[in-house]
Amino acid sequence: MKIGFIGLGAMGSAMAGHLLEAGHALTVWNRSPDKAAPLVEAGARRAASPAEAAVGAEVVISSLADDAAVEQVVLGEDGLARGLGAGAVHVGTSTISPKLSERLADAHAKKGQGYVAAPVLGRPPAAAQGKLFVMAAGEAGAVASARPVLEGLGQRLFVVGEAPAQAHLLKLCCNFLIFSTIEQLGEVFALTEKGGLDRARVFEVLTESFFSAPVHKNYGRLILDRAYGPQGVPVTLAAKDTRLMLEAGEALSVPLPFASVVRDRWLAARARGEQDLDFAVLARQIAQEAGLKE
Amino acid sequence: MKIGFIGLGAMGSAMAGHLLEAGHALTVWNRSPDKAAPLVEAGARRAASPAEAAVGAEVVISSLADDAAVEQVVLGEDGLARGLGAGAVHVGTSTISPKLSERLADAHAKKGQGYVAAPVLGRPPAAAQGKLFVMAAGEAGAVASARPVLEGLGQRLFVVGEAPAQAHLLKLCCNFLIFSTIEQLGEVFALTEKGGLDRARVFEVLTESFFSAPVHKNYGRLILDRAYGPQGVPVTLAAKDTRLMLEAGEALSVPLPFASVVRDRWLAARARGEQDLDFAVLARQIAQEAGLKE
Amino acid sequence: MKIGFIGLGAMGSAMAGHLLEAGHALTVWNRSPDKAAPLVEAGARRAASPAEAAVGAEVVISSLADDAAVEQVVLGEDGLARGLGAGAVHVGTSTISPKLSERLADAHAKKGQGYVAAPVLGRPPAAAQGKLFVMAAGEAGAVASARPVLEGLGQRLFVVGEAPAQAHLLKLCCNFLIFSTIEQLGEVFALTEKGGLDRARVFEVLTESFFSAPVHKNYGRLILDRAYGPQGVPVTLAAKDTRLMLEAGEALSVPLPFASVVRDRWLAARARGEQDLDFAVLARQIAQEAGLKE
Amino acid sequence: MKIGFIGLGAMGSAMAGHLLEAGHALTVWNRSPDKAAPLVEAGARRAASPAEAAVGAEVVISSLADDAAVEQVVLGEDGLARGLGAGAVHVGTSTISPKLSERLADAHAKKGQGYVAAPVLGRPPAAAQGKLFVMAAGEAGAVASARPVLEGLGQRLFVVGEAPAQAHLLKLCCNFLIFSTIEQLGEVFALTEKGGLDRARVFEVLTESFFSAPVHKNYGRLILDRAYGPQGVPVTLAAKDTRLMLEAGEALSVPLPFASVVRDRWLAARARGEQDLDFAVLARQIAQEAGLKE
Repeated sequence: MKIGFIGLGAMGSAMAGHLLEAGHALTVWNRSPDKAAPLVEAGARRAASPAEAAVGAEVVISSLADDAAVEQVVLGEDGLARGLGAGAVHVGTSTISPKLSERLADAHAKKGQGYVAAPVLGRPPAAAQGKLFVMAAGEAGAVASARPVLEGLGQRLFVVGEAPAQAHLLKLCCNFLIFSTIEQLGEVFALTEKGGLDRARVFEVLTESFFSAPVHKNYGRLILDRAYGPQGVPVTLAAKDTRLMLEAGEALSVPLPFASVVRDRWLAARARGEQDLDFAVLARQIAQEAGLKE
Repeated sequence: MKIGFIGLGAMGSAMAGHLLEAGHALTVWNRSPDKAAPLVEAGARRAASPAEAAVGAEVVISSLADDAAVEQVVLGEDGLARGLGAGAVHVGTSTISPKLSERLADAHAKKGQGYVAAPVLGRPPAAAQGKLFVMAAGEAGAVASARPVLEGLGQRLFVVGEAPAQAHLLKLCCNFLIFSTIEQLGEVFALTEKGGLDRARVFEVLTESFFSAPVHKNYGRLILDRAYGPQGVPVTLAAKDTRLMLEAGEALSVPLPFASVVRDRWLAARARGEQDLDFAVLARQIAQEAGLKE
Repeated sequence: MKIGFIGLGAMGSAMAGHLLEAGHALTVWNRSPDKAAPLVEAGARRAASPAEAAVGAEVVISSLADDAAVEQVVLGEDGLARGLGAGAVHVGTSTISPKLSERLADAHAKKGQGYVAAPVLGRPPAAAQGKLFVMAAGEAGAVASARPVLEGLGQRLFVVGEAPAQAHLLKLCCNFLIFSTIEQLGEVFALTEKGGLDRARVFEVLTESFFSAPVHKNYGRLILDRAYGPQGVPVTLAAKDTRLMLEAGEALSVPLPFASVVRDRWLAARARGEQDLDFAVLARQIAQEAGLKE
Repeated sequence: MKIGFIGLGAMGSAMAGHLLEAGHALTVWNRSPDKAAPLVEAGARRAASPAEAAVGAEVVISSLADDAAVEQVVLGEDGLARGLGAGAVHVGTSTISPKLSERLADAHAKKGQGYVAAPVLGRPPAAAQGKLFVMAAGEAGAVASARPVLEGLGQRLFVVGEAPAQAHLLKLCCNFLIFSTIEQLGEVFALTEKGGLDRARVFEVLTESFFSAPVHKNYGRLILDRAYGPQGVPVTLAAKDTRLMLEAGEALSVPLPFASVVRDRWLAARARGEQDLDFAVLARQIAQEAGLKE
């Protein structure tokens, strides 16, 4: 398939690389052009703008940091909506607000373009192997057109609705579940450590009994190893996603007390200068609040 | 092995039945004697008091509702500590406070008896098949003596420490993780339903991706099916466990904001007259607070 | 003084009426023109647009509902910034975000106009008698020019800083203190009522001992009388102010757990259909959550 | 009047001194006898036990730290209930649980003694001048007997019910209002300080407008001055009172989210080693969490 790919951060590069390996024809664009080099070397074509990356593509995929970046790259001057042909489909994998998702759907529809929201669960190594979980939403015809690409990205594709905003809402919920699981585990680790239990044993009991999901194992492991370095997803992004979750709760009149607790953790983390650390550092804050030296 | 078994509620009966099937010699006691009938029919001997159930046993297992019941049955007149021989071991499977656990350990030690805390994870059907998760703590010799029984009860035995209170603390944490997972899922179900997503699809996406642990599947299923009837574990017991968790936090100076949110849910549930419903009814409270008709 | 007055809701009309009585020359404008009639009858001149109301005025006062209204009326086509002369001052009494306050300050500065933020504490009857509390912030010269008007509006004028956004931030804090005092009192009324105490006696003890501020007496009285009708300030506005408070906390990295509790109360109130009731209705929510019939 | 006085801490000594000055005949007892010396010098008689202090007294007043102390001093061997005559009245001024209050009422009733709960609001200097606020509850006859003493202790006497537990419940609520006001003010001070406002100006605006109660002025002043030294009421006692408040909420099924937030603050304070500082130190915790150096 002829695919445009826009946004080559850690996630974007991994996804694009995997699609290239799978034999698709890729045209790539990134704001800082050097990130495109490895893909170009591997056979991708480099575009000079998002619009150019979209010209002639059947599907254009975007992978960007936040609402502002998506708005600029899609709807700005030289944005991909300028280049995308009628009948072609934009697949948005970024975690953005349901509100912007609705605006994108409208803007594309006016030009006869399709828009499929397709946020993903998984970190870059899973992306590089096509092992992501993909939750897609969009008008049925657009989803059908994009299906080969969507299935190529993930080990599992869930089509969750016809309104793109629904996929983004569900993605925000998944991130909320991750963040609040760290809070749960953080409270448990702090309490049991002060009660004299061995941290590794606690981790083993939990993750080999009722609490054995990837969310428990992956993030429990980071807490166990106190692996809070800057290599992962930073506090800044987690704070952004939590804000979007709370805004969705406000728009839909749904109280979300756990999300508010998590929100305050991110603010305290930023106040401590931890904004660039992996968001699992939330667990260290809990431990320190309980008087543990970490 | 010669085993005394005290407390034949849903969990106790299932565990006792399984041990009987496995060929152990059981002497059973329950406050209301009719609950003992099926086991006696199946070959168990009936005792007239906890003390009598303990006489001559290598191991006595207790399975009771709360601190008050355990204190009475173990340390009261005709309590099991009166009957238990020196060198024999009391295995306590109830979810009790770490504080009472310490008192039991002292009382047994003074009589030369062993005490192993062995709270379990799992509902009665798992107990009937020996598929529980058992987290045990106690002095090494006592654990060794009780090991055949502990392994008989569960699919997996975790020995988590030498102080019995540590097993009880960890069990409280497991229950807290269950309760707070219901809060997490309840917030997500309410928000996504108001956002127009299909509940069953949300359940599928979550439990077949990152959130696939038994805690997600079992309790997510109850929420999905709105199965809040009185057949399960009642709000009353969940409220009791949450209180013990918060008391442990207070004793050890560990702030537990999620546990406090859950606490208030139980109080509101009781104020609504839901004290005897399955504790998963917490999710209905969240939905109704968000204006959903349930 | 020659004064333009823009926005004639309950608060605006009361303030404008008081200034007129005090002998100032007023030109007034309101989106729905009928609200201007009583003032015109009393001697005010009617303007056809915000810009026209500003032409020739030494000071223009705005009293509007939210950020969107202020932005439109100040910076929109025919906005007051178009009509205001160089050296004249815009006095903004609305409760808006510190962020918009900064933009207004910049926009006015570029035209040589002054901008003084002057949000007020008090309800319409206080406004009609010039008994408001006024907290003002702005460049010293602009504050000096506006001082006669600022002093005319209130029983007490506090100049709190040179950056207009500071006055708005403090005003958000005052509103937060009001909202969270209702939560405090609501928890106390619910608990003592369930404990068998007489509500009126509780009110008396509190407000005649340590808790005797206007915030306790005014809002405690509404709770005591269950006076939650639509005559007051609606839940919708309180929800907006709480959102601005939380956004300020996010911008400045300050965790605000009490504000989050209050936020969820407003969302639940809206989900119950109470958006147009007086915001003191929060106390009824607390009582009902505790199982009290109200 | 012939008065026994038991418990001569800072509050007790101040109250006893004031009663002595007013011309009452006092017999005093304190666990560590040296605290009685100044009163004995001023004319009080020293008793060898609580029981002895009660013999022949018309009213015995107790002023003690917590439930355990009260239980020991009233109901223990040589407790005041042993010495108190039929028809005489025990006036309990300590902040204790409503539950213990009920037990005391029963125990006294069985001996034909009266029991009036009379917790007080105010610090030692107010006690020394008879300027406390006294909230009393008890059977009408007992209150009538004790009235001269109750009026002597305070600038204002509120009789709040016939069940002593009701006065204790209301006292817990007053303390909760104090604690949660510190949280309110702490959030506001942190936010406004990070927003560039002057702390003293913020204090002035608040306490001279809507937030002018003693609770605002007294505790706001401590925060303003960062006066968190060990001279005041320690975190330990505040944590105890908050626990009793939450237990009352649990007993009466009343969710109390603000009380839970405050609870976690005390636990974190203890974990930081601040248990002996004045409880207003809670505000410093808020400030530091927001990244302010205090």
